[in-house]
Amino acid sequence: MAEFARSVVCVSGGMDSAVAASEAALVSGELYFLHLNYRQRTERKELECAQALARHFAAKDMLTVDVDYLARIGHSSLTDPGLPVEPADLHRRVIPSTYVPFRNANILSIAASWAEAIGAGAIFIGALGEDGSGYPDCRPEFFRVFQELVRAGTRPETRIEIRTPVIHLAKDGVVRRGLELGTPFELTWSCYQAADEACGACDSCALRLRGFARAGRRDPLPYKNIARKRAETV
Amino acid sequence: MAEFARSVVCVSGGMDSAVAASEAALVSGELYFLHLNYRQRTERKELECAQALARHFAAKDMLTVDVDYLARIGHSSLTDPGLPVEPADLHRRVIPSTYVPFRNANILSIAASWAEAIGAGAIFIGALGEDGSGYPDCRPEFFRVFQELVRAGTRPETRIEIRTPVIHLAKDGVVRRGLELGTPFELTWSCYQAADEACGACDSCALRLRGFARAGRRDPLPYKNIARKRAETV
Repeated sequence: MAEFARSVVCVSGGMDSAVAASEAALVSGELYFLHLNYRQRTERKELECAQALARHFAAKDMLTVDVDYLARIGHSSLTDPGLPVEPADLHRRVIPSTYVPFRNANILSIAASWAEAIGAGAIFIGALGEDGSGYPDCRPEFFRVFQELVRAGTRPETRIEIRTPVIHLAKDGVVRRGLELGTPFELTWSCYQAADEACGACDSCALRLRGFARAGRRDPLPYKNIARKRAETV
Repeated sequence: MAEFARSVVCVSGGMDSAVAASEAALVSGELYFLHLNYRQRTERKELECAQALARHFAAKDMLTVDVDYLARIGHSSLTDPGLPVEPADLHRRVIPSTYVPFRNANILSIAASWAEAIGAGAIFIGALGEDGSGYPDCRPEFFRVFQELVRAGTRPETRIEIRTPVIHLAKDGVVRRGLELGTPFELTWSCYQAADEACGACDSCALRLRGFARAGRRDPLPYKNIARKRAETV
């Protein structure tokens, strides 16, 4: 019997959320996919990936939420077309400009509202901790406190577990775990910059390519050739 | 000198948020009003009140956010036109059907994203605790944990205080405090049901009318006559 009759899965369309969906599928009866459009440059591509993943995992329902206010709130190169996306720097110690303030709190609040409404017992989110991009709302401590918030802010009989199945993995660990679980990486997208061929130059591409390289696998996505060659030798 | 150079104030258009705005004005340089449209029956009226309050308090900016997903998530008579609003029962001990799951977490997450983006040092929200409508996300414990969440999920240098200035007041205490501070109650709206004359019959009207009656003041809003007479003698 499944551990959870119903689970909400936060599905961006990226590889981490796809592996989180694979983990959710292992322990859940029905999957409910939540996709957020926060008007990032590559939203259309990410939505297509989320929809393809929903079909792949036979999700019971998919809720797409337009959080356009994150774009209006701005202060992020991910949502503000006027700010350039910084080239990759995996050794950087400052918070990158793609940071959307408190984004995961917004995502998880919507997920928890939906989970309580449909009686889901868990929320899965594919946040990476240490090997992520250094966002404060991706740290294990953030999710621990959010779990506490769900307990404090929902009906007494409501039980919703926040699961972060990939948080302790590095990117190559996500690749390895995804391969074990049969995650369809070809249905995911990571590039912040482009939607046809991945640029290979942004932080997200660089992390992804390094993850596949370290796991000894070739990423199934199309890249601009030079970018892939350079990144795979990092 | 003001305690906070900038504060975000969550302004529904109701009387509690108007008193919270009065409190914020006492200790803040610039006010930034956040109004959420979650497609409740009386949204247009509430938006007009929020705008009138923004003018009254000379707010520096007002951000209106359409959280229509709360309507789609549903399970609430506040947002679902198919469910009737229950008549008032101030002695009820169960959570009323107007409960929108985890609503305040959604409101505060947006407020915190905005506060971090503009460098606001405080978020004011006019939630009532004991004399509120019994929602789990209105309890002091919920706000205490949310304060912790903001600490855990924002940049290390970010300091945002969650202020709930009316949480320990009963409704008549809100009326009294608002009168002390000069809160323009005539620019607020509470009825869940109607936007021209307040119905006087829903929970929100009943609480408001009882609050004014106990404070020995007449509510400046128009009510259906019979409803006011009945409610003021509760």
